[in-house]
Amino acid sequence: MLPRGRPRALGAALLLLLLLVVGFFLFGRDPECERRSWAGEGGTLCDRCLLTPRVFSDGLGTTATLDGDPYGSRNRSTSSLQLLLPPKCEMLHVAIVCAGYNSSREIITLMKSVLFYRKNPLHLHLITDAVARNILETLFRTWMVPAVVVSFYDAEELKPLVSWIPNKHYSGLYGLMKLVLPSVLPLSLARVIVLDTDVTFSSDIMELWALFGHFSDKQVVGLVENQSDWYLGNLWKNHRPWPALGRGFNTGVILLWLDRLQQIGWEQMWKLTAKRELLTLTATSLADQDIFNAVIKEHPELVHPLPCVWNVQLSDHTLAERCYLEAADLKVIHWNSPKKLRVKNKHAEFFRDLHLTFLGFDGKLLCRELFGCPNQFPPGVEQLQQALAQLDEEEPCFEFRQQQLTVHRVHITFLSHQPPPPRPHDVTLVAQLSMDRLQMLEALCRHWRGPMSLALYLTDAEAQQFLRFVETSPVLSARKDVAYHVVYRDGPLYPVNQLRNVALAQALTPYVFLSDIDFLPAYSLYDYLRASIEQLALGRRQRKAALVVPAFETLHYRFSFPNSKAELLTLLDAGSLHTFRYHEWPQGHASTDYTRWREAQAPYRVQWSADYEPYVVVPRDCPRYDPRFVGFGWNKVAHIIELDAQEYEFLVLPEAFSIHLPHAPSLDISRFRSSPTYRDCLQALKEEFHQDLSRRYGSAALKYLTALQQSRSRA
Amino acid sequence: MLPRGRPRALGAALLLLLLLVVGFFLFGRDPECERRSWAGEGGTLCDRCLLTPRVFSDGLGTTATLDGDPYGSRNRSTSSLQLLLPPKCEMLHVAIVCAGYNSSREIITLMKSVLFYRKNPLHLHLITDAVARNILETLFRTWMVPAVVVSFYDAEELKPLVSWIPNKHYSGLYGLMKLVLPSVLPLSLARVIVLDTDVTFSSDIMELWALFGHFSDKQVVGLVENQSDWYLGNLWKNHRPWPALGRGFNTGVILLWLDRLQQIGWEQMWKLTAKRELLTLTATSLADQDIFNAVIKEHPELVHPLPCVWNVQLSDHTLAERCYLEAADLKVIHWNSPKKLRVKNKHAEFFRDLHLTFLGFDGKLLCRELFGCPNQFPPGVEQLQQALAQLDEEEPCFEFRQQQLTVHRVHITFLSHQPPPPRPHDVTLVAQLSMDRLQMLEALCRHWRGPMSLALYLTDAEAQQFLRFVETSPVLSARKDVAYHVVYRDGPLYPVNQLRNVALAQALTPYVFLSDIDFLPAYSLYDYLRASIEQLALGRRQRKAALVVPAFETLHYRFSFPNSKAELLTLLDAGSLHTFRYHEWPQGHASTDYTRWREAQAPYRVQWSADYEPYVVVPRDCPRYDPRFVGFGWNKVAHIIELDAQEYEFLVLPEAFSIHLPHAPSLDISRFRSSPTYRDCLQALKEEFHQDLSRRYGSAALKYLTALQQSRSRA
Repeated sequence: MLPRGRPRALGAALLLLLLLVVGFFLFGRDPECERRSWAGEGGTLCDRCLLTPRVFSDGLGTTATLDGDPYGSRNRSTSSLQLLLPPKCEMLHVAIVCAGYNSSREIITLMKSVLFYRKNPLHLHLITDAVARNILETLFRTWMVPAVVVSFYDAEELKPLVSWIPNKHYSGLYGLMKLVLPSVLPLSLARVIVLDTDVTFSSDIMELWALFGHFSDKQVVGLVENQSDWYLGNLWKNHRPWPALGRGFNTGVILLWLDRLQQIGWEQMWKLTAKRELLTLTATSLADQDIFNAVIKEHPELVHPLPCVWNVQLSDHTLAERCYLEAADLKVIHWNSPKKLRVKNKHAEFFRDLHLTFLGFDGKLLCRELFGCPNQFPPGVEQLQQALAQLDEEEPCFEFRQQQLTVHRVHITFLSHQPPPPRPHDVTLVAQLSMDRLQMLEALCRHWRGPMSLALYLTDAEAQQFLRFVETSPVLSARKDVAYHVVYRDGPLYPVNQLRNVALAQALTPYVFLSDIDFLPAYSLYDYLRASIEQLALGRRQRKAALVVPAFETLHYRFSFPNSKAELLTLLDAGSLHTFRYHEWPQGHASTDYTRWREAQAPYRVQWSADYEPYVVVPRDCPRYDPRFVGFGWNKVAHIIELDAQEYEFLVLPEAFSIHLPHAPSLDISRFRSSPTYRDCLQALKEEFHQDLSRRYGSAALKYLTALQQSRSRA
Repeated sequence: MLPRGRPRALGAALLLLLLLVVGFFLFGRDPECERRSWAGEGGTLCDRCLLTPRVFSDGLGTTATLDGDPYGSRNRSTSSLQLLLPPKCEMLHVAIVCAGYNSSREIITLMKSVLFYRKNPLHLHLITDAVARNILETLFRTWMVPAVVVSFYDAEELKPLVSWIPNKHYSGLYGLMKLVLPSVLPLSLARVIVLDTDVTFSSDIMELWALFGHFSDKQVVGLVENQSDWYLGNLWKNHRPWPALGRGFNTGVILLWLDRLQQIGWEQMWKLTAKRELLTLTATSLADQDIFNAVIKEHPELVHPLPCVWNVQLSDHTLAERCYLEAADLKVIHWNSPKKLRVKNKHAEFFRDLHLTFLGFDGKLLCRELFGCPNQFPPGVEQLQQALAQLDEEEPCFEFRQQQLTVHRVHITFLSHQPPPPRPHDVTLVAQLSMDRLQMLEALCRHWRGPMSLALYLTDAEAQQFLRFVETSPVLSARKDVAYHVVYRDGPLYPVNQLRNVALAQALTPYVFLSDIDFLPAYSLYDYLRASIEQLALGRRQRKAALVVPAFETLHYRFSFPNSKAELLTLLDAGSLHTFRYHEWPQGHASTDYTRWREAQAPYRVQWSADYEPYVVVPRDCPRYDPRFVGFGWNKVAHIIELDAQEYEFLVLPEAFSIHLPHAPSLDISRFRSSPTYRDCLQALKEEFHQDLSRRYGSAALKYLTALQQSRSRA
């Protein structure tokens, strides 16, 4: 029982629901975000900083070529001493083009490395396709990093601006889009750092921003020299690169002085050059980089060469060693080979370790506020933080309260995914899991040949293990109709219903089969469910229906799966199979009426009874799970009550079944069994749930309350 | 089969064995290490740097008081611009006092934070008790961080130097030892940074070292002002702190100018002051810090005040906010409250996140070399790296070869541990596990009431989860006779035999029971084994014996454990229990002769037969497991062959038994079952093992080879 804190906790839970449902923090879609006080306004602040520059220089130049002496970094103190430091709390602007599933994962690792070192507010300008936007919008909304604003720009709209340029580079059209940033980004934006998704920071981005202070009046673009001999030509017979100044420049890291670019007519300039070169060259080989270099060759006064450490390029034939062996400090690593981390390089392991640091880095640890900078959070987030801060750590159910309020960072469609074609009776299997159930996935894929939407509760490091697990599994990597949504771990209790809701929200078919990861469906279930949905004409019925898939279990961990209902019944009679939790929790599936099911030839209707928790097929727009149930216990029961309260009919399917495989008890179940407090807290949650139910359904909810009271008096 | 690379791999495996057995890299014990070329020599190099100082200053002073204006950091550019940067590759020296299990964990987190940001070679001077030395020597030897030298100094020898000082601080005598460092560290050492174990770095330690360059000729000790009102006195009635200059100074971070301290007679000085103050004050409240402050009060010219950001103190009533809200950059965080991370503080979460970053940080990622610095590795490590580099990535068994060569970082006795008292017949249960078997520990503790030595294969983050798991389990936290040894994950294959060897090497009783984590021993087994060892007079026998504990299994995951052999036989007859792997791998335990065991009243001798892998009790000095067997398969079989070859008698104990509980198949077993390459590589390992066996035992090993050939012709 919970003597204290219930009303507060209720309020908090409502607040959470509000946050989850309304989506309080829709970055970028709101054009107003540019004008928010805390977001600052790039141009103005920066100008202020440049009007009163404090330049500290030891007198070394910043020109940086691979053959000349100074890299701007050969002397170890140069880079840190030549800074024109932006004032504390100045907003820095970063633009990145990002498209597809893989780049969406890359950009997150890049952002982790930037956030780890940054000490300034950041405004990200993301040029994305629909896939990346969907992923990244959800991610940043749920990540809630202080002092980070994100604006999205639709890459689809930019395609016509660059699609006339023939291009052979693996980045496709998206690479070319960096050329049009000056006309796409807000006019108010004076300067921006442009990054490829395959760079990793190993320093504070503020130091890079400060290099704008070294630009002469004429310079509009800051670039690091290309660290290969590509643009020198003659790498092989008929190798004819685009024109460039010496070794040319690499465009993985660019400082763009936007307003000056506008003034000099950048758009005209690069188009003219590109068209002229394309008269003799058939296509760009390195996308935007070829064109940037051609323009610079013609107008060398436009470029401000940056020290080599700001773009250490790790392609196969890189000359980067000349840079980093001398430098005291690497600032940005650029994985500019299509092989990425698998590139062959004498020091590859060194760079991989730097990158791996952020690949598995817990993103939650990057939610550090910037001391002394005002208004880092939008109001909704601040409310949530206050609610969390007001929880009483001494209260027995504190962990439950805290877990309920926790907004988990969510990375939807973590891996490549092909959405299922629209089919009126299609059904998606919905489930959730953590690392210790990964072994179930292959078997599940063999049993269910339809689409799946799975939520995985993982740490950042585990997400990488999961990625490798799928890549090395022929069964899993062949399946493009399984969508994996990573929900990042945070807190001591398993947020089972929040996970279910993430998986459910991402299901794309009209129907969903709400299952659990340790169940294997009958091989025929996917086809049978679609046929049943069609036959029962669920779409056209007046009444809402939940199709019940009867659940069984085996206690043996080696087990041969029945191929038909007849085989299943034989195993049941032989005692090799049981109805699910028959021994421990018979009421969970009593209403399914297994005796009737044995003989049934047609779907039959059953009534709700206390603690009923069948596995059901429902329309995708069914009620969500109640996120207050965290850890073990009652999480499905509450959902079935909700379905019943909303007058869903329960129809048991005569040929459907699924079988639970044994596994070691989860840590949550162990805690439930061993801790009286845990059970008391669960009881308190149940009572709060019923209070809400009565409030919403009035006297119709009376039967649930009666059932609860009966079960309590039995306990 | 392995067509290529076998001789090379053999050589590599031998090299690994050599490395593991001989201990090629015993830091510190070797007084020569000071003179190694790659270690450099602190004093000389530093002096060189100071003779030609390049000081860049923007004119702001560095004095730093909480009430005065500049913190030396209020202006964001101060700290980075006022540096006297030591030359690239200069060795920096750090001294830390560390005693006991908890501080040994703390110091590792501290070192991770230092290593993450450092760009210079480091020499650690560790003043340790026996426990910490044992842990840290193993850890640093197996960590193999480039350009880090570690020297150990025995704290026991320093105790008499400070034990005369009455002290009430929680750090005990060890805190006071910082006072005697100038007389303990090598005379050749001119300067050293002294750190408490409870600080976390958030910056490059080279910047701290550079502050020596700001000392005046007279200054000998650099300290940050104390960030509380403690030394102002009157915090409560009769609060009478030691004398201090204003708020006094905190000694969590100290710059010690050692040779100058020698010159001014530091030892005389602090003793005189301490003795005088102790005439009126009964004891030190804050250990060394009280005495440092009393000396400074008398000789203010000795202290060089450091910017507050170099020791941000997070006690309960800290005034640190005045420092960090203004600063652009925090350099060092100091958890100087006995509550540590649980301290109440408005910004506690910010600081906790910084600390947690390194708590769960993968230490392996810190093995980055320092580009451009010579001789970072001792010769043994370089040989190992070359062997690894020479492996052929395209070879089918590459992963096996790589895993065999991997030296895992090992943290022995990760948690507090009470070694068992010496008893001639005592026996330690030895096993290994990873995170997915943590649930077994409580049951195991209930079944086995004797000492255990367990190796855990974990990531750094999992090690922290494991720590919390034990802390929150009343069963586990009550057991001080269980030693947990963390072996850090590295590579795709489970290094099962390396883990077993770590656990075996740390067993402290004369006998060991070599078990597996998913077996529960009979409740009586511990007592029964000790009695059997005594009765069989194993210690006095001429012949070596291995006592066999018969193994059973249940396929049911709910199961009531038999209290006696009689009960066990009943369950066996009822089919609820089976002899272990009877269905899949009967030869593994065939020699145990279960039929005979049913009736046996006394121990009986059995003969080795092919693939025999019983669970046995042997003397602690038994042969080690062959570390070439990684992943799944044949790892115990090879060990039993080794015992048989060394003429151990196998004696089956008539009342002993242990039962295997079911669990989901491990990922390694799944891979074994699904991959033909995996099986081929295992077969290759077996053959190499037999070649070694023939080499060592000659014709006596013939029977094992015959058995292998028979099994191959069957396959």
